[in-house]
Amino acid sequence: MENLDQLKAVTFDVFGTVVDWRNSIAREMNLLADEKGFSIDGAEFASAWRSLYQPAMSKVRSGELPFEPLDALHRKNLDTALERYDIHQLSEPEKVHLNRAWHRLDPWSDVIEGLVRLKERYIIGTLSNGNISLIVNMAKHSGLPWDVVLGAEVTGHYKPCPEAYLGSAKKLDLAPHQCMLVAAHNSDLHAASSCGFRTAFVTRPMEYGLDQTTDLSADHDFDLIAIDFVDLAEQLQA
Amino acid sequence: MENLDQLKAVTFDVFGTVVDWRNSIAREMNLLADEKGFSIDGAEFASAWRSLYQPAMSKVRSGELPFEPLDALHRKNLDTALERYDIHQLSEPEKVHLNRAWHRLDPWSDVIEGLVRLKERYIIGTLSNGNISLIVNMAKHSGLPWDVVLGAEVTGHYKPCPEAYLGSAKKLDLAPHQCMLVAAHNSDLHAASSCGFRTAFVTRPMEYGLDQTTDLSADHDFDLIAIDFVDLAEQLQA
Repeated sequence: MENLDQLKAVTFDVFGTVVDWRNSIAREMNLLADEKGFSIDGAEFASAWRSLYQPAMSKVRSGELPFEPLDALHRKNLDTALERYDIHQLSEPEKVHLNRAWHRLDPWSDVIEGLVRLKERYIIGTLSNGNISLIVNMAKHSGLPWDVVLGAEVTGHYKPCPEAYLGSAKKLDLAPHQCMLVAAHNSDLHAASSCGFRTAFVTRPMEYGLDQTTDLSADHDFDLIAIDFVDLAEQLQA
Repeated sequence: MENLDQLKAVTFDVFGTVVDWRNSIAREMNLLADEKGFSIDGAEFASAWRSLYQPAMSKVRSGELPFEPLDALHRKNLDTALERYDIHQLSEPEKVHLNRAWHRLDPWSDVIEGLVRLKERYIIGTLSNGNISLIVNMAKHSGLPWDVVLGAEVTGHYKPCPEAYLGSAKKLDLAPHQCMLVAAHNSDLHAASSCGFRTAFVTRPMEYGLDQTTDLSADHDFDLIAIDFVDLAEQLQA
């Protein structure tokens, strides 16, 4: 903790770190398939939809496209994924509703307890590529007790652009070393660390299902490595 | 309530409506005067400091100055007020600390109970001219359970510019009529109403002390008129 005695804010990556997007999307997709009479492997569809996420943001990060909130990128990616899976049974309102499945993702089971404890001692916020309404609706859906929504829409930059981290710290009127990023993804933590953030790796070995091969462990000497959010709260003396 | 059945978000003016800025600033100023050995009427100084608030924002609203967060405007106004009161005893760190008294304002006594109830049924957020760090630190100071910080810094526009209200609704992906502004100030509610927001006037007859003459009652047929936040929660069936 001696390196962390000036820590004021603990900020979180959301997709994969806080919420289990794959099983949440899979469940909604399987229910929809039953309802509409088509067949699908919901988890596979979730991964296919999610795989279009980084390429879509790359175009924004490179300046090829102007900043758009993630809901808009998710929608274009949904249309692409539905096309690939040859699913043409959905009405426009059904697609709108399905796209908002990202607002209804469930947290991993340790999240609420860990956040409630951390909130007692620190400012806790999201530092996610999710847009404000997505993060707020997700919080209402399952009681995530955020103090503040930061990240892409608030700064106008998608992670891992430095502006997303530095701009988030600035909105709290804090120096980067007073902020920590918590993530289940090494690349996100490397980017945050380069900006001067403190870093905590939390393992989420089931994010991509049983055959996950990436981010199974920390590949760098991050400030903290935790097995879940309760362990993180413990290590941060919260 | 029939006019309000599509209401999703209840947003709040903060200074005067949620927190008692005058007594909070007065208390800090009186303590500081004791400590540093000068004499002051803390409440009068609070009002003098606050009276520079609208003129400072006007220059931003008119485009004469670029957008600056409220902390920066408060600081310039503090320097002006200290000069006027001929107070030269404060060091730079003491001025920085005093300027952050706005981050430590106490809520009126009905606020927490009302917000906790409203949060069960609605998204509750700030729609204030206060910057993000000010609102977040104030929330941590007294346990205000906001779901989201909206308003000036998030939209880049000070109230009563329409962009401050419309931009805040947009960040929630809601139409203006799905949002309500709660304020103790008629002018703020008029501006919000012109943007299509639902409106609730809450009386704060002591905001300016015993001799307050303005905003003692609603001057318009707002959607709701409440005596405090508990009454507001009651009327909104929360």
